[in-house]
Amino acid sequence: MPQVNAYAAQSPTSGVKPFPIERRDPRPDDVVIRIDYCGICHTDIHFVQNDWGRSLYPVVPGHEIVGTVTGVGAAVSGFKPGDRVGVGCLVDSCRTCSSCNEGLEQYCENGWTATYNGEDRHDGTRTYGGYSGQIVVSERFVLRMPAALDPAAAAPLLCAGITTYSPLRHFGVGPGHRVGVVGMGGLGHMGVKFARALGAEVTLFTRSEAKRAEAERQGAHQVIVSTDRKAMAAAAGRFHFILDTVPVAHELDPYVNALQRDGTLILVGMLAPTDPPLHTGPLVFARRRIAGSLIGGLPETQEMLDFCAAHGIACDVEMLDIRNVNEAYERMQRGDVRYRFVIDMATL
Amino acid sequence: MPQVNAYAAQSPTSGVKPFPIERRDPRPDDVVIRIDYCGICHTDIHFVQNDWGRSLYPVVPGHEIVGTVTGVGAAVSGFKPGDRVGVGCLVDSCRTCSSCNEGLEQYCENGWTATYNGEDRHDGTRTYGGYSGQIVVSERFVLRMPAALDPAAAAPLLCAGITTYSPLRHFGVGPGHRVGVVGMGGLGHMGVKFARALGAEVTLFTRSEAKRAEAERQGAHQVIVSTDRKAMAAAAGRFHFILDTVPVAHELDPYVNALQRDGTLILVGMLAPTDPPLHTGPLVFARRRIAGSLIGGLPETQEMLDFCAAHGIACDVEMLDIRNVNEAYERMQRGDVRYRFVIDMATL
Repeated sequence: MPQVNAYAAQSPTSGVKPFPIERRDPRPDDVVIRIDYCGICHTDIHFVQNDWGRSLYPVVPGHEIVGTVTGVGAAVSGFKPGDRVGVGCLVDSCRTCSSCNEGLEQYCENGWTATYNGEDRHDGTRTYGGYSGQIVVSERFVLRMPAALDPAAAAPLLCAGITTYSPLRHFGVGPGHRVGVVGMGGLGHMGVKFARALGAEVTLFTRSEAKRAEAERQGAHQVIVSTDRKAMAAAAGRFHFILDTVPVAHELDPYVNALQRDGTLILVGMLAPTDPPLHTGPLVFARRRIAGSLIGGLPETQEMLDFCAAHGIACDVEMLDIRNVNEAYERMQRGDVRYRFVIDMATL
Repeated sequence: MPQVNAYAAQSPTSGVKPFPIERRDPRPDDVVIRIDYCGICHTDIHFVQNDWGRSLYPVVPGHEIVGTVTGVGAAVSGFKPGDRVGVGCLVDSCRTCSSCNEGLEQYCENGWTATYNGEDRHDGTRTYGGYSGQIVVSERFVLRMPAALDPAAAAPLLCAGITTYSPLRHFGVGPGHRVGVVGMGGLGHMGVKFARALGAEVTLFTRSEAKRAEAERQGAHQVIVSTDRKAMAAAAGRFHFILDTVPVAHELDPYVNALQRDGTLILVGMLAPTDPPLHTGPLVFARRRIAGSLIGGLPETQEMLDFCAAHGIACDVEMLDIRNVNEAYERMQRGDVRYRFVIDMATL
């Protein structure tokens, strides 16, 4: 019998309101999950506000989900009721293209299925996310949550965590590397933690001198205030990698110039609303690169969770009663959160 | 005794005129070279016209030099009179930074010395290039010219050749790779030849349908007319690497979109006078990269010359009497050369 148990945003102006959402009965490969915690990602706000013009109301946001298995389909072998699990940005993909075959479902050549505002590949129904009491997800897209992780602080790992971990791993960041992280929000503070845990020398670039002590507490060896032209000039040619987590339009040249020869500027955010100009000189004269990276595939996300458990890494979170979601959105838009809100679903 | 034996551009309007240029007496590590052939690079035109605002007149252009050793300093061990040699874009560098230590003198962290319009690191004199009867160059910056190479057709290898060979080698292009080359001028036609010889499947992107047969003759397996939207759309996601040789402002998005996941767009030209916008979406959603690459270091340039000898590769050239340099410049600016002018220095 379909489940009725969710909140949903009905329009940009009405905000988040109770709305009955049906969850499908489990298919043979499905895991039924009671949602315990759900992180709030900036993407949620974009969809609730229809900033990208492709929101399909009602939207149930949320793709940083930690929960507990309450049931499994007949063909599920890896999970059983009572298991603590996670669900991130993807709940399905074509499973046949070369990216899927390599466990890089986030680059599925036929388009992956988003955890919310997506369309189920089998029955064409809408997908609804984690601001909800329950979710039903195919086994392949369910993560095992290590017991050592605090489940609430682990929720944002499913998006903010893997988005920063994946490129650092893909590009082989490790001891001997000087790594810069631009911005210290939900993603940036995870980037600092991961780069540090991977053995790199970590520098945080921030516009605010006030974040210095906090960045050092997060693991940064050094902080450079990006508005300090002298400090930026002194950083020229220093970095092997710079992970740029800033999701709004900003100048890239100062960071490109801070790369050494063969260095890579890794972009994980969409730079909106205007695109920066691409200056070819700084790339050509030092064989530098600008690369993009998108969240992570399922195997790498599992690896990241296990890495966090082994290294005692978690997201810094502020717990939230679901009735205060709108207030949380407002605070996020002012940058007033350290560093991720997580909804306690017991408050639903 | 200083040598007096060069042509030099005195101003953008006067073009190339006879002018006495002194060449230094050989230092212990110097090789004295009689210049037999010199290719004409677009950069030469930029310097003659002072397009970049940093020409120091008199300019003697030319950095695609093939000649014959006529004398060597006391400490020179690798060359002797009569040897056929080459000189490219660099005649010196700091020789102590990490790039120089790795044989990547083109990325010298203290700035390499250009073959012309540069400044000698020892005596502060101006450097003068290959539109000349003779040049004196430190042994480390002199290339051995394999006997199997036609010396005239080999001259442009020293710039157009190494500029395209270096990134293909650095990024590991080989069998199983689909490689696109954008533009078929002096650089592009070499890019096609090298990518083909390295075992890749090669596609030429050109604005002109008329170049199809010629591109296939050069070794391209396929030609895509870049103004054909349908053909470009069909190419989406296909290429491991695209080598973009077009040195003027143009849209990059069509080529970024033609890359597959983890594909790299390699830029070897400065995009002037306007910078294209950098759209982050196509990078992020397929972990694509945009990289720059600059000519090549001395060891790799030698490797490239040996590779050309082994694979029967040369530049397609049109021989030129030095009295017709101005006419050649005009033809180059109309794109009317297949694919490189080479000055026969016997006409000096």
